[in-house]
Amino acid sequence: MINAYAADSAGAELKPFRYDPGQLNPDQVEIAVEYCGLCHSDVSVVNDEWGMTAYPVVPGHEVVGRITALGEGVTHLKKDQRVGLGWHSGFCGHCGECDTGNQNLCAQAQPTIIGHHGGFADKVRASADSVVPIPDGLDPKVAGPLFCAGITVYNPLVQFNIKPNSRAAVIGIGGLGHLALQFLNAWGCDVTAFTSSDSKRDEALELGAQHTLNSRDPEALKAAAGQFDLIISTVNVKLDWNTYLATLKPRGRLHFVGATTAPLDLNVFNLLMAQRQVSGSPVGSPATIADMLEFAVRHNIAPKVEHFPMSKVNEAFARLHSGEARYRIVLEAGK
Amino acid sequence: MINAYAADSAGAELKPFRYDPGQLNPDQVEIAVEYCGLCHSDVSVVNDEWGMTAYPVVPGHEVVGRITALGEGVTHLKKDQRVGLGWHSGFCGHCGECDTGNQNLCAQAQPTIIGHHGGFADKVRASADSVVPIPDGLDPKVAGPLFCAGITVYNPLVQFNIKPNSRAAVIGIGGLGHLALQFLNAWGCDVTAFTSSDSKRDEALELGAQHTLNSRDPEALKAAAGQFDLIISTVNVKLDWNTYLATLKPRGRLHFVGATTAPLDLNVFNLLMAQRQVSGSPVGSPATIADMLEFAVRHNIAPKVEHFPMSKVNEAFARLHSGEARYRIVLEAGK
Repeated sequence: MINAYAADSAGAELKPFRYDPGQLNPDQVEIAVEYCGLCHSDVSVVNDEWGMTAYPVVPGHEVVGRITALGEGVTHLKKDQRVGLGWHSGFCGHCGECDTGNQNLCAQAQPTIIGHHGGFADKVRASADSVVPIPDGLDPKVAGPLFCAGITVYNPLVQFNIKPNSRAAVIGIGGLGHLALQFLNAWGCDVTAFTSSDSKRDEALELGAQHTLNSRDPEALKAAAGQFDLIISTVNVKLDWNTYLATLKPRGRLHFVGATTAPLDLNVFNLLMAQRQVSGSPVGSPATIADMLEFAVRHNIAPKVEHFPMSKVNEAFARLHSGEARYRIVLEAGK
Repeated sequence: MINAYAADSAGAELKPFRYDPGQLNPDQVEIAVEYCGLCHSDVSVVNDEWGMTAYPVVPGHEVVGRITALGEGVTHLKKDQRVGLGWHSGFCGHCGECDTGNQNLCAQAQPTIIGHHGGFADKVRASADSVVPIPDGLDPKVAGPLFCAGITVYNPLVQFNIKPNSRAAVIGIGGLGHLALQFLNAWGCDVTAFTSSDSKRDEALELGAQHTLNSRDPEALKAAAGQFDLIISTVNVKLDWNTYLATLKPRGRLHFVGATTAPLDLNVFNLLMAQRQVSGSPVGSPATIADMLEFAVRHNIAPKVEHFPMSKVNEAFARLHSGEARYRIVLEAGK
C-alpha cells in the first residue's frame, strides 16, 4: 500500500489517501519519496483548471527518492539508487518523438499527476525510462524542482541552440524564472530580469541577472527595443506581448514556458519585419534532464527552496498561493 | 531624366511622371528597366495602407533590366549586365545585420518604392549592393517576381534550415504561393496546398503540390492534425490560426510571409504542448536572392506570369484587383 495525500474534488484540501498500486509492471520502478517539489501545475491539476484531472488526485511531480523495487525488465537502474521523477512518468516508447529522443513531446506521454498518482506520498511508481539518476554533487534536498521548473527553462536553451553570446531576458522571477536566471548566466549569456517587484530586483542580480528592467514602466520597455536574442516568459498572465516582441533583436525569439490562457494577439508585422519567432515548449526529455543535472552540478546551480514537512502539505499550498515563497517549495517525506 | 508612372495621392491612378534623378552616387547603378513585376505591396504603398508612402510614388520592385551606368565606386558589376532589383534598393552596410549577411533585416534598409522611385519607369537606380545578376538560363521576361514574391517564400527554407524530408504546406495559392509550391517541391519536401478554390486545385498539383486540402472544410482541417513540419502562410486575411497550428507536428513551424493586419490571437497551449513555433520574415538578402536564382535555374522554377505593356499599368492594377491573375503580372517596359 502507498500512503499519499490526495484531493477528492476540484479545489479540495489534500487529505491522507491510501491506495494499492497493484503489481509492479516489468518496465517500472518504485521510488521511496524523500523530497517532492510543489509546482503551480499541481495547483492547476488539483483545481481541474485544464479540465483533465482524474480524482482522487495525488499531486507531486518533482520527486527525489531512492528506488525500492524494479520491474523484471529494468536492467539499467538498481535498488537504492537515488533518482528523480518529473512531469512525465511514462512514454509510448515507439512514436516518432520517442524514437528521436523527444519523449516529452510524445502524444501518449503519461503525466505523473493526471490519471496516475504522484509524489506527495511515501512511494511513487514510474516507468524506468522516465526517471533520471541524481548525480553526485547534487543536493537531494533541493534537487526536486529541477525536474519540472528547472528542465522547463533549461530545455529551450538546448532545443533552440541558444549561444553563450546571446542577450537573454526572463519575464517572471519565480519558481521557473529564478532557475532561468541561473542557467542563462552559466550558459554565458548576458541576462536581464524583467521584474516589477522591488524586492526581487536585488535577488535577481544575485541569481545571475546582470540587468533588471521594470516591466511596469512602459518607457523602460520602449527604451529596450531591439535588445534581446531570447526572452523566456514564465508567467501565466496576459502582458502586452507586442511590446515585448519589440524588445527582441531581428531574428530574436519570444519563448513561452508559462501557460498563459489569454490569446497572445500578436501583430504579424512585429514577427515579419524582423524575422522574429514565438515558440513554446513543455519540460524536456529524460536525456535533456540528465544533461541539465550535470550542467547544474558543474555550475553550482540549485533551486532556492523553502522546506515543509509533507504532513503540512496544505500549509505549503497556502504559502504557494501567497506568492511569497522564495522561490520554490519542497516537501519532505516522512515528516 | 527618368520617365516613370506615379500616383500622386492615396488610391490615385498612375500617370506619366518625369523626374531628374540627379548625379549618380558612387555606390549606385542605373538600370534600364526591361520588365517589372506588379506585387500586392505596390498596391499597399500606392494606397498608403502602411502609412509610410511618400508621394508622388513610383511603384515597381520586381525589376529586371540592364545596367546603363555605374557609380565610380562600383567595380563588381559592369555596363549592359542584366540584373534584378527587389524590395530593397540600399542598406546601411555597417550594422550587425548587414555585417552578417542579413541586409534584408537592416533597420535602415531603403525600400525601393518608399522614399525612392521604383521600377515602373524606363530607368531605376539602386545601390550596387542591392542588385543581383540574372544568371544564364533564367528567362528575363518572367524573372522579375522572383525578386520579391520568390525570395519571400524561398528565404524561410534557408533561414530555418528546412530539410527535404519535411512535410510542408502552403496557405494561399497566388503570387507567392504558386512559387512556394515550386520551391518546396524542388527542395524535396512533401507539399500540400491549402486552397478553397476548385479552379486552383489542379493547378496546385501541376505546380508541385502532391496534395491539396480544402481550407474551408473544417473537418478536413481537423483530420490533418499533426501532419506538417512547416506551413507557410502567404495570405493577408485572418484565418483560424489555432486550427492551422494544430495541423503542425510537434516542433512544427507556422511561418508568415503574408502581412495580415488582424492580430494572430494564438493559444499559447498550442505552442507550448508540442514545442511549436510561429515566425515571420521579409524578403531575403542579396546573397540569398543569388542562391535562389541559381536554385530556380537548376530546378526549372519560374513564375507563371501575365504580361502587360507598361503603358497599361492601370489595367494591370485592375487585373490584380480582380484576383484572376494567374499568378503574377509583369509589365514590359517601352511598350
